[in-house]
This record gives sequence, structure tokens and C-alpha cells, in this order.
Amino acid sequence: MSEQQRIPAPQVCRFLTAALERLGLPAQDAGVVAQLMTEAEMQGSDGHGVIRLVPYARRIRAGGINLRPKIRVVKEKAAMALIDGDNGMGHLVMKQAAELAVAKARQCGVAWVGARLSNHAGPASLYARMCLDHDMVGMYFAVGNANHLPPWGGLDMLLSTNPIAVAVPAGEEPPVVLDMATTVAAYGKVKAKAQRGEQMPVGWMIDRQGEPLTDPKRAEEGFLMPIGGYKGYGLAMIVGLLAGTLNGAAMGSETIDFNHDDVTVTNTGQAIVAIDPDAFGELDAFKARVDKLVRELRASERMPGVDRIWMPGEQSHARRIVNEREGLALPPALRAQLDAFARDIGMPLLQDI
Amino acid sequence: MSEQQRIPAPQVCRFLTAALERLGLPAQDAGVVAQLMTEAEMQGSDGHGVIRLVPYARRIRAGGINLRPKIRVVKEKAAMALIDGDNGMGHLVMKQAAELAVAKARQCGVAWVGARLSNHAGPASLYARMCLDHDMVGMYFAVGNANHLPPWGGLDMLLSTNPIAVAVPAGEEPPVVLDMATTVAAYGKVKAKAQRGEQMPVGWMIDRQGEPLTDPKRAEEGFLMPIGGYKGYGLAMIVGLLAGTLNGAAMGSETIDFNHDDVTVTNTGQAIVAIDPDAFGELDAFKARVDKLVRELRASERMPGVDRIWMPGEQSHARRIVNEREGLALPPALRAQLDAFARDIGMPLLQDI
Repeated sequence: MSEQQRIPAPQVCRFLTAALERLGLPAQDAGVVAQLMTEAEMQGSDGHGVIRLVPYARRIRAGGINLRPKIRVVKEKAAMALIDGDNGMGHLVMKQAAELAVAKARQCGVAWVGARLSNHAGPASLYARMCLDHDMVGMYFAVGNANHLPPWGGLDMLLSTNPIAVAVPAGEEPPVVLDMATTVAAYGKVKAKAQRGEQMPVGWMIDRQGEPLTDPKRAEEGFLMPIGGYKGYGLAMIVGLLAGTLNGAAMGSETIDFNHDDVTVTNTGQAIVAIDPDAFGELDAFKARVDKLVRELRASERMPGVDRIWMPGEQSHARRIVNEREGLALPPALRAQLDAFARDIGMPLLQDI
Repeated sequence: MSEQQRIPAPQVCRFLTAALERLGLPAQDAGVVAQLMTEAEMQGSDGHGVIRLVPYARRIRAGGINLRPKIRVVKEKAAMALIDGDNGMGHLVMKQAAELAVAKARQCGVAWVGARLSNHAGPASLYARMCLDHDMVGMYFAVGNANHLPPWGGLDMLLSTNPIAVAVPAGEEPPVVLDMATTVAAYGKVKAKAQRGEQMPVGWMIDRQGEPLTDPKRAEEGFLMPIGGYKGYGLAMIVGLLAGTLNGAAMGSETIDFNHDDVTVTNTGQAIVAIDPDAFGELDAFKARVDKLVRELRASERMPGVDRIWMPGEQSHARRIVNEREGLALPPALRAQLDAFARDIGMPLLQDI
């Protein structure tokens, strides 16, 4: 516990809010972004949660984010809208997109809202899950902000790990929430292996000769592998077409690598789809069918050594409950980084806020 | 050429039309199904084309298909509809669904049409591609008609290879058309390996201990592998929730294995989504952006030994052009099967029609 002292989520959220305000976000916007970053951490998406404060700060200070964006609908029909994020924080853009998609789906049964000139918005499932609060199915597509994937058979990294998330409401069971990159491993996992001095399993990466690459320190010499080989390449491209190209957002060589460029407008593209099950029939009957499916999958006979069959999103759901009760366990290195950040910017430390 | 004498596509279509009429389909419906089966063959989806005539006939004769279905909209909002296929041929149901989705998307920007009480409708891309004729993006989801996939870590085959197709219109380039099962290999490919006496590559199937299964003759002892491991399991489940559960169609243990049961109503679920790029901006500008992306992916530096980088759907597109010009090359075994079928049902042979 001394290594991983748990901090109540509201305290983490207060810290993030204060930090983002110091960085120049209006109070209300800072609160929204902090809340979503905390939610990401709560569900175990630690690569997209609190750890992002420092890179966001770097980009904000470099002038790469518009702190007073005019986020507005630039195209609209009954069941769709295209939002111009005006280079604001992606969380603000996609929260607005999700709310609009839900409102339109309430009227039309289904709605699709795309965004351009957005930015990194955290884990894909955050926005798909927003639809759950309205008893709707949510889907989310995004173009990643760094290209680590070549076309199948190619060497030029022109595609990102473009994620998909889908959230489906259940009745008594936790919602089914898929949140996946279209590569076997996300790039963050490679970096984590390198930090721990571990080898990667065969299948995560290949080198420029197409041979398995298992030394994460050599990651720069190779590429991530798409799931299912050429299928994952196709999925990454399609997600990019739907979330990027359709919205007039960056795709392919237009993608700005936000790890190496803090200034250029990323023109990030994302899309959210809301589907109202109530339009397709009785909502409660739908939820009961989801429960039934979940229970029969979970009750399947198991392979030797398998303790439990998990539904997509079920482990995140369990983590959220523990974190709500016990607080967030931030790794010591991250705590130290946050303390240094707070001292640097002249605000109270996480433990004192 | 004697082994694989090419037959002009219209002749194949006439044969299929006549055969389906003999089986009892109304003339117009027979023509629609035959046309779509021929199109499947044209694009190289040979597992879903002409080869299906005999299993369809078996099911029709057993009374497992309603030959006079009242296909009707049972739920509707501006951007969605739910179609009851009344156990008719899936092609008829999903053609109607695609047309309705396009009409609604023209009004609303985006539309989603689901179906229940449908049946096998051929390759997923057929219906996604229907949107292309209207300059729209098409997406298609379906629940497969045989379960070959357990939940991740499980042994009970409760999921099918539930496919996804997405078709995106381009300008001068061929459209980008992804059509993929959520398993590494479709079950038909396993059967083909067994027929040819070949071994399967590691990764297609595993046995009940989780060990690689490479002998296709032992296929019944194991399962298909989902793409990307647990990710593909999640995708297969989500596709099933969207195409099956949402529509009140069969999913999980409710799925009827149409290889072993010709009588029970399959209650097949499918869904089609039409997205009008013109609602998001200028259609021509969108198509130009798709062209640009396709060209830069294709121009990527290649791995040693790779001759060309293909876009999703580009090989089917090329095949369609060759088949249109030169006719369809049906394998001798299939030709013999069709001849036997024609003699049995008392109609002209393919070569004479």
C-alpha cells in the first residue's frame, strides 16, 4: 500500500481539474476533461487516463490545442451531424458528439455524429459507454494519433491502431463493452514491455523482412501486426475511412504523430453512433436477451486451466467497482511525475488537494 | 479450358433462375436470388455463390423456406427499420433492407435497417456494395448459420463466424470493400483443405486442450480461432448482438445449424447501414480523398517478395472484371453437381440453357 497508496477518484478528479485550469482551460471545460480522464483511469484504461496529463500539458503549452474552441455543427441532417472541433480538447468535442447522437437517435432510432479538428479523447469505450446512460447502444470509431501500421505487405507506416468500441446495455448483467485496437497489441504495451525489460510474444510485431520481432527495444525497426493479418489491416483502413476521411479529418500520411509534434493541428477524426433498442422492440425484452446470451456464454464448459469466461468489458466493469470503493492505485512513477508537474506549475500536490 | 470451361454470367443466371422457379419461387423472386448468387460468383465469393443452389434446394424441398413470404417492416423510425423476413430467402429480405436503408439515408444522412426471420443471403459484401450504386457507404452485419466458435477460453460452440462488410465508394479507384469473417479462417476453407488432403496452418483452429489443430480431418474435434484472440471473440459477439439480438433474431444457442437441419426456421438476423457521404460534405471531395488514401497505401514501399499491395476488395473487383469478360469458371465437381441437379429436377443443363 505504501507503493500504491490509493487515492479517492474525486480527489484525482479535483487535481486534474485544477491542473487543466492552470493550463488555461475554462473551469467548466477543465472539469469535463478531468472527469473523463478520471473515468478512463477508473475502468483500468491507464494508458489513456491520468498518465495523459503531462503530454496534454506539453501540447497545450506549445500552443497545439485551442483552449477556447468554438465547437460547432457544420453539417446536419435528421440522423447525422458533422462537428468541427476547432482544435479543442477531444474530450469536449466527443462528449458533445455523443450527446447529439443520443438526442438524434431518440428521434430517428439511430444517429451518427462525426468530428473533425478534434484531438485525442481518451479510451474509445468512454464515448460508446455514454450511450448506455440513455439505454442505447453506442459505437465509436477513431483515427489514432500516430501511425505504427503499414498496409499489408508494405513497409511505410501509414495507418494507426484505429480503435473500435461498442457498448451494449444489458439488464441485470454488466453492459457488454468491446474496446479494441485493430492491432494485436497497442503501442503502449510495447513501451511497457521495454520498460520492464521483457520480451514481446511472437505475433505482436514484425521487422522489415516480415520476421517476428520480439525485442521491444528494437520496436523502432518494425511494425505492429494487425489482428487477423490482412483482415486487421482492412479493419484499420475502414475505421480510418469512417472516422477520418468521411469527416474531412486526417488519415494516412496526413496523421500528425502527437508523440513527436506538439504544435501542428492534428485534425483528429472520430465518430459516434447511437442506436436506440427501444425503436427495434421492447427495451426490456432486448436487455433480457442480452442477459440470456451473456449467461450462456459465461456458463460454457471451459478449457483446462481457464477459471472464468469473461464478457467484453466485464473486467473493466469489475475494476471500476473496486476503484470506486477503494480509490485509484496510481503507480509510484506516475505519482512522482504528477508531483513534479504540480510543483512546476505551482499548484497543490495530489495528496494535498 | 476443358476442365474449367467458362460460362457467360447471364447463362449461369438463367440456369439459377430456372432452377429456383422449378423449386417453387415466384419468377420475380427467382430472378432476384439468381442475380445475387451470380454476382457472388462473379466477385469470387465461390463459397456463397452457385455452390449454394443444392443446399438451398434441399432446404426448400424440406419445407424450411417460405416461398411466398410477406416481407414487411414491423418497426420504423426516420433512420431505422426492422424487417420481418417471414422466413423467405435471405437475398429477398436483405435486398429490400438495403433499398430501404438507402432511401432513408438519402433523407436522414444515415440509416440502419435490421432483419429477423431472414435466411442465408450470400456474401456480406453483396449488400454493403448495394449502397455504392447510390454513392453511399454501406455496412453489413450478419449472424452466421452455424456455430463454430466458443467464447474465449470456452469449449461450447455458441458463436458463429459472424461477418462484417463495409463498402466505401471511391472516385477513379475501385471502391474499398472489406468483407471478413471474425475468425481467422472461414469454415468452408477448412472443408476445402480436407478435400484436398492438405494440412491447415497453425492459427486456424485449436483443439479442446487449446493446442493447435492442423489436420482438417479432425476439424470436428476443435474450433475456429477468432482473429486477434479475445478481440475476435468480442467482435463476433458484438456483431451477433447488433445483427441478431437487437432484431429479435437467433443468437448463441438459438442458432440453427443449417448444415444439419433443413426444417427448423433459422430466424437469421442481419443488418445493413447506409451512410450518405454527401451529407458530410461534398461527395466528389470525399471520393477524391478516398482515391488519395488508396494511392498512397498502394505506393508504400513493400516487404521483400511482395509484388503488390492490395486494397480490401480490390482482388474481388479484378476478378469481377475478368469474369464479366470471360465468363465464370465453375469447377468440374460443381458442374457435375449442377448437371445432376438439373436432371433430377427435369430442367435443361447449364450448357443448354
